[in-house]
Amino acid sequence: MIEQLTIIGVGLIGGSFARALRQAGKIKKIVGCGRNTPNLEKGVELGVIDEFHLDIPSAVKDADVIFISTPVNSFENIFQQLKGHIKDTAIITDGGSTKGNIVAAAKKVFGQVPIHFVPGHPIAGTENSGVEASFAELYIDHKIILTPLLDTDKDALEIVTGLWHSCGAEVVLMDVEHHDLVLGATSHLPHLLAFSLVNTLATVDDKKEIFDYAAGGFKDFTRIASSDPVMWQDICLANKAVLLEHLEHFQTDLDSLTQALENDDASYIRNIFSRAKNTRDQFMSKKET
Amino acid sequence: MIEQLTIIGVGLIGGSFARALRQAGKIKKIVGCGRNTPNLEKGVELGVIDEFHLDIPSAVKDADVIFISTPVNSFENIFQQLKGHIKDTAIITDGGSTKGNIVAAAKKVFGQVPIHFVPGHPIAGTENSGVEASFAELYIDHKIILTPLLDTDKDALEIVTGLWHSCGAEVVLMDVEHHDLVLGATSHLPHLLAFSLVNTLATVDDKKEIFDYAAGGFKDFTRIASSDPVMWQDICLANKAVLLEHLEHFQTDLDSLTQALENDDASYIRNIFSRAKNTRDQFMSKKET
Repeated sequence: MIEQLTIIGVGLIGGSFARALRQAGKIKKIVGCGRNTPNLEKGVELGVIDEFHLDIPSAVKDADVIFISTPVNSFENIFQQLKGHIKDTAIITDGGSTKGNIVAAAKKVFGQVPIHFVPGHPIAGTENSGVEASFAELYIDHKIILTPLLDTDKDALEIVTGLWHSCGAEVVLMDVEHHDLVLGATSHLPHLLAFSLVNTLATVDDKKEIFDYAAGGFKDFTRIASSDPVMWQDICLANKAVLLEHLEHFQTDLDSLTQALENDDASYIRNIFSRAKNTRDQFMSKKET
Repeated sequence: MIEQLTIIGVGLIGGSFARALRQAGKIKKIVGCGRNTPNLEKGVELGVIDEFHLDIPSAVKDADVIFISTPVNSFENIFQQLKGHIKDTAIITDGGSTKGNIVAAAKKVFGQVPIHFVPGHPIAGTENSGVEASFAELYIDHKIILTPLLDTDKDALEIVTGLWHSCGAEVVLMDVEHHDLVLGATSHLPHLLAFSLVNTLATVDDKKEIFDYAAGGFKDFTRIASSDPVMWQDICLANKAVLLEHLEHFQTDLDSLTQALENDDASYIRNIFSRAKNTRDQFMSKKET
């Protein structure tokens, strides 16, 4: 039983973590922290958190575990406000979608990455945000990637792993750099492309009609373009170097496909489409609902 | 009550049309036609069709309505086999995803587009194919676009419209060219992009791991890349001119976004992402399930 968990950023990710752990009976007191008072009041009303503070030092001073689920570009600022205000034994972990920039921010603020900091990234979410969108089942059967460093405290890692297991999640370990490479490909790049496509269609004259005749395939394809624009702007910039590499690779391939279309090269197009279908069917079929 | 409906191409689209009309009690006899004998035998076994022929002249000679749901590049060939073998009053309609090339094929084969030909496109489907994937409810509350020409027979249009209404669908009329422009944007372009993205990721070294950590957003985004590659190769080529225009527009916008990422231009990125989210939320929210 953990005496106090403090959630900095009580939205979909942080709120769902709190709800799941409360439901599992793992935490005595859950304290929320953020800048949006109505959202925090809602969190108390919904029973997601027990109380809240608007300033970080008050929220974290008695915390045994601190979970940071704020925009990925806010971590340097948050680490600075944590510094000197937390218990020596306090474990810090997070739900940020990028890991390289967050680990770099910790190193910058603390001189070295604290041994009780266990960087993490739950591979779960919906296109909705805010504490009202949170639910206890969000993480069930989802993967949580933890990216401990060589000198990360083993007990801290074990405790964080245990908390995620209590949420029904599967924990996997990965290098910081590898995390950003893989997630850049499967998450950041698709989000950028979906936003970009919908934006392109939003600029055509008869956009109402365009969307009127959009079928299920389009709805699925563009669902992630209904995600929080500021959060994704931050993620794309935080993982910029990797994302630019993936984008270059994608654009080169798309240029070749466009060329094939211009040249009526049916077999080239078929090969690309077939490889895509085979790959997706092979790797994703077990994930279909 | 229609005496005989002949379905040329008994797959997801043609099979679902047959099932829905049989369920509605609108047809006395449904004849299937195709080249895949086991699929046609399965169609009889499932009660989708009553009998089948492997040659078009035998399948259509007594048909009152002929529904063609074969790949969009097969229509010229099929029209040639129909010619001279159908009743004068026989109504021809189809379920092809492109309309310009199909109307052009009809004109080429028959000298002019037959007045009893009502070009159509049901905006419905799944990523599965074959008669076993068909189901009677596929078209319920879905839009069917019919693209009659100026001299299309009004009675033929009315009969085809009535058949779709019996399937639970909503019928809308559109110009041939406008259909191809709108569907190029909302269907053909997203399919090409989804295939292209999955293909790009399929060529990276650690592709198994890439897909292992793909979450729900990626699954939705790439679902259409599990569609039939040959069918989509044909559609992309059939609507090539429009698709190339949309692609150029998309690539120009993506280049600007890439440039903004390189330059850390957060406000440009945020504007694009926000416009995309607002547009999608505005036009698609009523379509969410």
